[in-house]
Parts: sequence; structure tokens; C-alpha cells
Amino acid sequence: MLSPYQFILRKRNRLEHSAEEIRDFILAYAADKGVESYQMAAWLMAVWFNGMTVPEVAALTQAMIDSGDVVDLSSLPGVKVDKHSTGGVGDTTTLILAPLAAAAGAMVAKMSGRGLGHTGGTLDKLESVPGMRVSLTPQEFLDQVRRIGVAVISQTGNLVPADAKMYALRDVTATVDSIPLIASSVMSKKLACGADCILLDVKYGRGAFMTTVEDARILARQMVDLGNHMGRRVRAVISDMDQPLGTLIGNALEVREAIEILRNERPGSALETVSVELAAHLLQMAEICPTLDQARERVRELLVSGAGLRKLAEMFAAQGGDARVTEDLSLLPQASIIEPVLAPESGYVTSIHAQKIGFAATALGAGRQRKEDPIDPAVGLEMTHRVGSKIEKGQPLAILHANKPETIAPARELILSSITIGPERVEPHKLIEEVIE
Amino acid sequence: MLSPYQFILRKRNRLEHSAEEIRDFILAYAADKGVESYQMAAWLMAVWFNGMTVPEVAALTQAMIDSGDVVDLSSLPGVKVDKHSTGGVGDTTTLILAPLAAAAGAMVAKMSGRGLGHTGGTLDKLESVPGMRVSLTPQEFLDQVRRIGVAVISQTGNLVPADAKMYALRDVTATVDSIPLIASSVMSKKLACGADCILLDVKYGRGAFMTTVEDARILARQMVDLGNHMGRRVRAVISDMDQPLGTLIGNALEVREAIEILRNERPGSALETVSVELAAHLLQMAEICPTLDQARERVRELLVSGAGLRKLAEMFAAQGGDARVTEDLSLLPQASIIEPVLAPESGYVTSIHAQKIGFAATALGAGRQRKEDPIDPAVGLEMTHRVGSKIEKGQPLAILHANKPETIAPARELILSSITIGPERVEPHKLIEEVIE
Repeated sequence: MLSPYQFILRKRNRLEHSAEEIRDFILAYAADKGVESYQMAAWLMAVWFNGMTVPEVAALTQAMIDSGDVVDLSSLPGVKVDKHSTGGVGDTTTLILAPLAAAAGAMVAKMSGRGLGHTGGTLDKLESVPGMRVSLTPQEFLDQVRRIGVAVISQTGNLVPADAKMYALRDVTATVDSIPLIASSVMSKKLACGADCILLDVKYGRGAFMTTVEDARILARQMVDLGNHMGRRVRAVISDMDQPLGTLIGNALEVREAIEILRNERPGSALETVSVELAAHLLQMAEICPTLDQARERVRELLVSGAGLRKLAEMFAAQGGDARVTEDLSLLPQASIIEPVLAPESGYVTSIHAQKIGFAATALGAGRQRKEDPIDPAVGLEMTHRVGSKIEKGQPLAILHANKPETIAPARELILSSITIGPERVEPHKLIEEVIE
Repeated sequence: MLSPYQFILRKRNRLEHSAEEIRDFILAYAADKGVESYQMAAWLMAVWFNGMTVPEVAALTQAMIDSGDVVDLSSLPGVKVDKHSTGGVGDTTTLILAPLAAAAGAMVAKMSGRGLGHTGGTLDKLESVPGMRVSLTPQEFLDQVRRIGVAVISQTGNLVPADAKMYALRDVTATVDSIPLIASSVMSKKLACGADCILLDVKYGRGAFMTTVEDARILARQMVDLGNHMGRRVRAVISDMDQPLGTLIGNALEVREAIEILRNERPGSALETVSVELAAHLLQMAEICPTLDQARERVRELLVSGAGLRKLAEMFAAQGGDARVTEDLSLLPQASIIEPVLAPESGYVTSIHAQKIGFAATALGAGRQRKEDPIDPAVGLEMTHRVGSKIEKGQPLAILHANKPETIAPARELILSSITIGPERVEPHKLIEEVIE
């Protein structure tokens, strides 16, 4: 086995790693056997500077997967699909597309995460439904997917422990924003979850991890190549996260918007458009629909007919949640203070800084700065305008849903600083920039 | 204070550090307060890639000095001089120039190191003199220099602990060979030792840390600028370490060669030539001699007259050593087996790989692979030829001095593999390539 010193030296000097030496290094680090965290940190920084080749990233991803358990979905019938978003604000697509895809016959066996920083997390949103459980045993998880076609839960088993350890280290050594490291981190977790088809929603813009479309494209390309290299059907959609995707931001508020969309009450909204498009890609990848156009049509039918809403209710009930929320939104947690933020001038909304909007929601208590922070499911905010729309001075720009009066002023400031108003109408980014497969 | 994360990020992103932020980071690391070794490792790797500006290196060096004690030589009369070699094989100049400079009136208050890998260390050589002590208290050290003008000892006090900690980390994270890190490591230790004039002997070639003259020049320039920036007189000599400098390699053997040179028994030898030149630079820097030519003449007089040899004997005696070794070389440790390595063919010696020769000496027991390894003071080897000299097949290329029969074969193999013989005479490198001030 190459010594950790020699391994670091090779990457530093731009020599290509063999799959075997990567495997040895990663597994030794994960097991605390012979690779110290300072050696991993030095190697990660060398990777930040020198990058990795596709075979190197594939070997890294496989080694990370092999550091822990994998989910075996082979006992389930049909095509197992999964979807991953690189994270954003008002990014509630999972709660809409998962029931729609399941209603169309796909097996949606999905493990989700929690919110951190300015981004929300599906598990936090789900837990705002009274009674909802997101921790299922592996057997409960498989049984539920087999029975109703969909389950969205927290990670079960010891999946990809190397990633957890490496991610914590990257977070404190300024080595997070490296495309091969992001690609291997995301894909190792998705591949360990065992789906046949994986759809990646790679966000770009000021509320996303990748701020430019170019970086998003490179990351998407790398993840798609990696997944294909490892025998899975993988496709990536590059979508806008310069302004928030949904109208409602906050945990129960985002569940409400998902329900409203599945009730066909927000036709043509940005969140509906992107969710339908993503669901259609999943159905076509799973070969449930032969063409993307047919898949779009099928998804729309399921939305309009209420089949998607019924599947969401089924999922809530299966995981112990109060399914009546899909009929009666007042059963979701409600904030005690509703207060508008008024436009300081008239004109067109020229930009909405998604990250700052996310921080405004966090300031109200909807998100967390550190993993251990508690969240308030009821609070958040409602955006009344999108980029390109007209506004009059004194009209609401946003509506705050708060429980603590002292959180209102900071949230208001963040919102006012995140929205610009100008005399000329500007075009927002396209919702979906491109598809990479 | 900038967080360690932000600090690493700035270097990674090629932003210049302020002196204050460097100081905070280094002192926190040295004191184990808030900077973890994995963060230092990530930063060191970022420095390896992005380098450091002169003000950054100066701030780093000062912070490293401030992490511990400094030696105060101000109570000594006259000009205090120091010399540092970047290390090599058969590089015994200290034992020759220190007594010569002291005999001329300079105050030579020198702290030296031990050998590691293929390079020798002055302390190990001194300890081959029976009775010699290299650990003096600070007071004993100052008293001896005041009384006889020279002392060569191991580091006293807690000098530059940040460097010791950082060096150990660099050694296992492939971040040793970074010029700003080498410059700050060397200069922090030299500056902490308190001399007014510092002469640097920067070696280049296959037995040196810097293998090319260009790298040696960059390192020398950076160290000279750094020292001047910090108010000291600093000069650097760039000298050859492609082949070993001395004829004898090993601890007692190198003491013997130094004594022989100070007895004027090896006139014109490479080691004598370089030692005299370095001593002359020290005397001119210290303004003991107005010109370099006058300084050279003065050093030669002291050598020929035996004044240098008497000063060496005085130093040995002052540090508890048997000064009679300067008269009777048989009092030095002697190896039990003397065995020649014969030339496999006739021709001219076209190259002698200094590092491999150093490893041959280590194989015989003269050096150490790890800090804790014991050494045998008696063993080593004698080189009978230098690059450019003629040799006949069957004549000795080198003479081994061994105590363990099993060490002979590996040493012989290393020597044969390190020397090339060809039909055409080649010119060796110049002994001193240039002087930088």
C-alpha cells in the first residue's frame, strides 16, 4: 500500500491515482486506520487545486460507497427512481414529483436530508405534518414502497460513512467547493441508495451552491458521467436558483404550497412547472412513458385528476402523518403573527437574491445555522412577486409568518436588502436551462 | 480574529494575508488553541500551490519566532556571527570555519542540528570526540563564547516551537518542498539564535534539498531578503552538492578531515576551499576585514599558522571533549573493518550521486532514517576520487569503514550505483556558484 505521504504527493504533483490507491486511502481514513485527518485535509486541498480525472472520481465514489452499507432495492418490483437537488430556497419539488411519479407507477424509494444554512430540507418539511415519521426501519421502508410506490425518509443504516467524515473535514478546511469532491459526495450517497434511475436537479444562481451556469454544467456533466460509468441511468436538469423557486418558504408553508399545487390551485407557477418537468423526466428515464412529451402529458393528467394529491395523502398516512392536511390546510402548524413587508418604491422587481431570502426565513426560525439548532415548523414567508413583475410602492413584497416578534425586524431587513426594484422590466432566468444526459 | 476557515480560504483564493492574521493563525496553532492540525495542513498545501509574498513570509517568520523563546546575545562583546547550511553529504564546514572565524575575533555562537536521512549533522560529528558535550545551559553557552569566541551546541531553550510542530506536519503531508515554508523555517530558527550576521550556505545538486541551481537561487534570495527585512546582515552562498563536498563521510571521519584541514594537510581540497571562502565571508560581513580578499588572506594565515586548529582544540576542551584528538587522530573512534570498493572499469569519474553516497554511509550505520535511530560514530567511508579524476579498473573508488560485516554489501552496492565512469573527462560543477546579498 502506498503511504499516505506518497498518496498526497502524487495528487500534488498531478500524477493520476490508481483506483486501488484511492480505495486504500479512503477506506483507511474512514476506518481510522493509518490515514490521519491532517493527511486527508492536505489531500483534499491538493484535489481542490489539481482536480481529478473521471476514473479517479469513479474510484473515489466507489470507495466511499464501500466504506459503509448500501440499500438493496432489488426485492421491489418495477423501476426504482430517485431524485436529488443540489439545494435551494423554496425548492419543494420532492413533495410534488414523488407522489406524481408513484401515481404513474414508478417506485420512489427516496432518502432525504435536513435544511442547513439558507437551504431547506425535505425531512424538516415533512415533519411539519402532524404525526409524520421520517425514521423508518429498512424493512418498513421497503414494505411501504412495495405497497404504495413511495416513501421519503431519513437515511437508514450506515450509508457512506466516509462521506460524512470527509464532508465535516471539508467544511472546516475550505475544500467544499471542488467539483470532483461535490460530485463524489452527492453520487456516492445516491448510488448507495440503490435506485436504477437517478435524476439530478443541479441548481445555479445566487441561492445555489454553484453560482454560475458554467459551474453547474461542469458539475452536472461529471455526476452524469460518474453515474453512467457505474451502470445507472442518470440525467441532470440545470435549473434556476437565482430567485426562490416556490412562493412559500418555510416548512409547513412549503408543504402547503405542494398540496396547493397537487390540488391544481397554482397552475403555471414556477414550482409547478419545474416539478412537472422533473417528474416527466423520471417517468421517461424509467421507461414508463416512451417520450418526454408523453411523460409530461401523463404527469399533468395525474395532477389535474387529483391522483398525485391522493398519493401524497397515502404517503402521509403510511408514515403516521395526518393525511387530512391535504384536505384541510388549517391542520398544518400556523404562525401567530402575519405581517407584510411593503415595497419601498414602485417599478419592476429586477432581482430577488435567493440566498438572502433563505436567510430571512432562517431569521424567522424556519432554518438552522448549525445542525443542532431547533426549527419552528410554522414560520416562514410568502413571496408575492417574482423577477419581472410590476409592483406599486406600499404594496406587499412579501408576507412574514412569525411566532417571535423580535424575529420580524431582521427578517424584514434581509428581505428589503434582497429585492431590487427598477424602472425597466428584466427577464428572469429560464426555469430550466438545460438537460444533460 | 479571522476564523481558521476564512484564513485558509484567503490563501486558497490567492488573497494576501495581513501580518496580524498570520500571527493569530500561527500562534493559535502553536498553542493548540483554536487551529487544528488538519486546518494547518490544508493551509500549508494551499501555500505550496499559491506561494507567499515577501511581507507574508516575513510575518510568518516573525510569528514563528514569537511562538517561543529567543537567544539574547547582546551581553557578548563584538559582532556575533552565525552560519547555516541547507545540508549535504561530507559537509563539515562548521568544524573548520567556526574556529577560524573565532580565531580572527568573531563571536561564533552557533546552535546546530543532527543528521537525518542522507545528510549529516554537526552535533553527531562533535559527539564522536570523546567526552564532548553539546547540551549547554544558556549561561554556559554565553560564558564560553565570551571566553574563547566559539561554541557549537544543540538548541537551548524553547526556540521556535511553531516550526517544530509545523515541520513535523509538513513531513507527513507532502508540503516540505515549498520555498516560502523552507525560508521561514530556516530563518526563524537562525533569527531566534540572535546573531548580527548570518551566512547561509545554500546547497544545490543531487545531494541537496534543492536539486537545481535556479531553485537554490530563489530560496537564497528569499532568505536574504527576509533577514534584511528583519534587520540582520544576511548573505547567501550557493554551493555545489551534486557530489559530496568532503573526502571523508561519517561522524568521527568528518572530524578527522576537519582536523587535517586545520593542520594544513589537505591544501586545495574542495572542503578546505569552501570552508575558507565561507569563513572569509563571515569576517567581511562582521567588518573584521574590510574586503573579501583581505578576509581570505586572514583566514589562510590562521589556517597555516595553526591558530584555527588551536581554537578547535580550545572549543573541544571547553565543552568537555578530549582536545588531544587534534594532535592524535587515533583517539577518535575507529572502525574495525576497512575495505575498499574497487572500480569496475577504467576511465574518468563522470558523476558521484551525493545523496546515494549519503545513504551508503547511513547503511554502514553513520546516519539515521528516523530521529530515534542510534548511530555508530566510527563508521563511514572515504572517497578517493572526485568528478573529473581518472581511475583505473581495480583501483579503489572508495574505502569503507565498517563495524558490522553485514553492512558492507549494501553500502558497496550503493556506492557502485552512485558513481559513473566514462571515457571523456567532464568538468564538475563550480564549488561556489554565486553569492547573493
